[in-house]
Amino acid sequence: MSIIVLGTAALDTVKTPSGKRIEMLGGSAVHFSMSASFFTKVNLVAIVGRDFPQKHIDFLSKKGVNLTSLVIEDGKTFRWAGEYHGDLNSALTLSTELGVLSAFRPKIAEHQRHIENIFLANVDPDIQRHLLSRMHKPRLVGLDSMNYWIDHKRRSLLKLMKDVHIFVANDAEARSLSGETNLISAAKALRKIGAPVVVIKKGEHGVLVSYDDLIFCLPAYPVERIVDPTGAGDTFAGGFMGYLTRAKKMNDASIRKAIGYGTIMASFNVEGFGIERTSRVTKKEVDERLRHFKIITSF
Amino acid sequence: MSIIVLGTAALDTVKTPSGKRIEMLGGSAVHFSMSASFFTKVNLVAIVGRDFPQKHIDFLSKKGVNLTSLVIEDGKTFRWAGEYHGDLNSALTLSTELGVLSAFRPKIAEHQRHIENIFLANVDPDIQRHLLSRMHKPRLVGLDSMNYWIDHKRRSLLKLMKDVHIFVANDAEARSLSGETNLISAAKALRKIGAPVVVIKKGEHGVLVSYDDLIFCLPAYPVERIVDPTGAGDTFAGGFMGYLTRAKKMNDASIRKAIGYGTIMASFNVEGFGIERTSRVTKKEVDERLRHFKIITSF
Repeated sequence: MSIIVLGTAALDTVKTPSGKRIEMLGGSAVHFSMSASFFTKVNLVAIVGRDFPQKHIDFLSKKGVNLTSLVIEDGKTFRWAGEYHGDLNSALTLSTELGVLSAFRPKIAEHQRHIENIFLANVDPDIQRHLLSRMHKPRLVGLDSMNYWIDHKRRSLLKLMKDVHIFVANDAEARSLSGETNLISAAKALRKIGAPVVVIKKGEHGVLVSYDDLIFCLPAYPVERIVDPTGAGDTFAGGFMGYLTRAKKMNDASIRKAIGYGTIMASFNVEGFGIERTSRVTKKEVDERLRHFKIITSF
Repeated sequence: MSIIVLGTAALDTVKTPSGKRIEMLGGSAVHFSMSASFFTKVNLVAIVGRDFPQKHIDFLSKKGVNLTSLVIEDGKTFRWAGEYHGDLNSALTLSTELGVLSAFRPKIAEHQRHIENIFLANVDPDIQRHLLSRMHKPRLVGLDSMNYWIDHKRRSLLKLMKDVHIFVANDAEARSLSGETNLISAAKALRKIGAPVVVIKKGEHGVLVSYDDLIFCLPAYPVERIVDPTGAGDTFAGGFMGYLTRAKKMNDASIRKAIGYGTIMASFNVEGFGIERTSRVTKKEVDERLRHFKIITSF
């Protein structure tokens, strides 16, 4: 089993109370890949410019990420710069340079069209739909978005939600898209739009999942020293979708376990800048933390 | 086994998106008592004015709350008026009239001095200390406070924390008192000051507990229709302390279960104005919801 992820590969400049990194490897598809590759083979679909350092490509290859559909085009790589203050709960965006991302039209290799597990990380919903339309027999499709698309391409997004199995959103996005303040009501409203499984990420406050008229909720794994939360949501999605891909089935038990793994992977992500921590974490560390997480949330 | 709670009995005027109540029965000791009385015999220590309606006294008596040390004095009962908007996470205080509370000096009956379980709900730390000093052999002492005392009677509060077993605070209070932004660090710092068990309440985001170098965390029980969150923290404390009183021991297992019960009691509290819902909830409903809570948080 393998998964294909559509999203961004980026150069991130981030400042947090723990320090600063300039143009480090980032982007939704990269964070997702680092995390999902713990569980399954990952195929990355993204675009970068000619300025994208070769060392990043070598690094991703070495990590086993299939880069057949990483397009390298004339122009500049997508760049994001941001700062975190105080409790590190929200980023202050300093600059966004789309570069080659502004004209991104994903192309995938013929053999990749047979991959059954798909994650559409946050890009224009029309681009997400285009990729999905290229796939031969989607079995498990996850979708993420962001406030910008909720505000500017709402209709495209709502239509796309009918064709996916899992919709992932943070609390603000879930409220904005559903018009509901209460998150349980929001999750139910989003399920009515389309996706049978709705996952609402609440950052340091954990996650709430709605499926089959059930609710499942977990706190975040408590991390004392948060270094950089950038990419935590995509890392969560990578662990969640990666585990479901490996499990080969989506049911009550596998969804719960997938949420547990997503939470654990996100907890490693925030312990380092960018992918510094997740790219080095071992399977033993992941399993140990999952075990510990079970202990500290059981009563 | 029984417990004695020091706190306020109040007349609350509350407006939320669900409606409005004028001068309903409220106050920290009342909310605590409603919740704790599910688990153990409760003795209430508070003060009210001559204007306190007899029906409230009759109601509390009927609920089995021992009112021997509810002082009725010339003057007006403590009144609070507030509003909640949006996600109902924080109250906007419209008015506070201390009335007889401003000169409160708790007196307890001689036989009550033998009660071993004590909860010092949020009042002036000097008054809390006075009550504690009257008790013969405190076995389990819980302490709550608020930002006002953290700012104005910090020294008294810090001293008192050395003489209690459990310190309960909301996230803002824990951060303010410890000077730590991260809640795990805050809990550790508060434990160093004194109380071996620190419980940080995060409202709709659940609870984080630190004891014996362990962390325990739970999300809030998901409630779709929040009517009025007033008193949720005291209701949580009532369930938590009430269960520990009944369990007759404080260890890893009893703390976890107590946190579970506190969470469930608080979830009922927010489903009605004031004590409307908690005062009517049945033992069967509490146990069913606790069972359901275990299911929706297990993975």
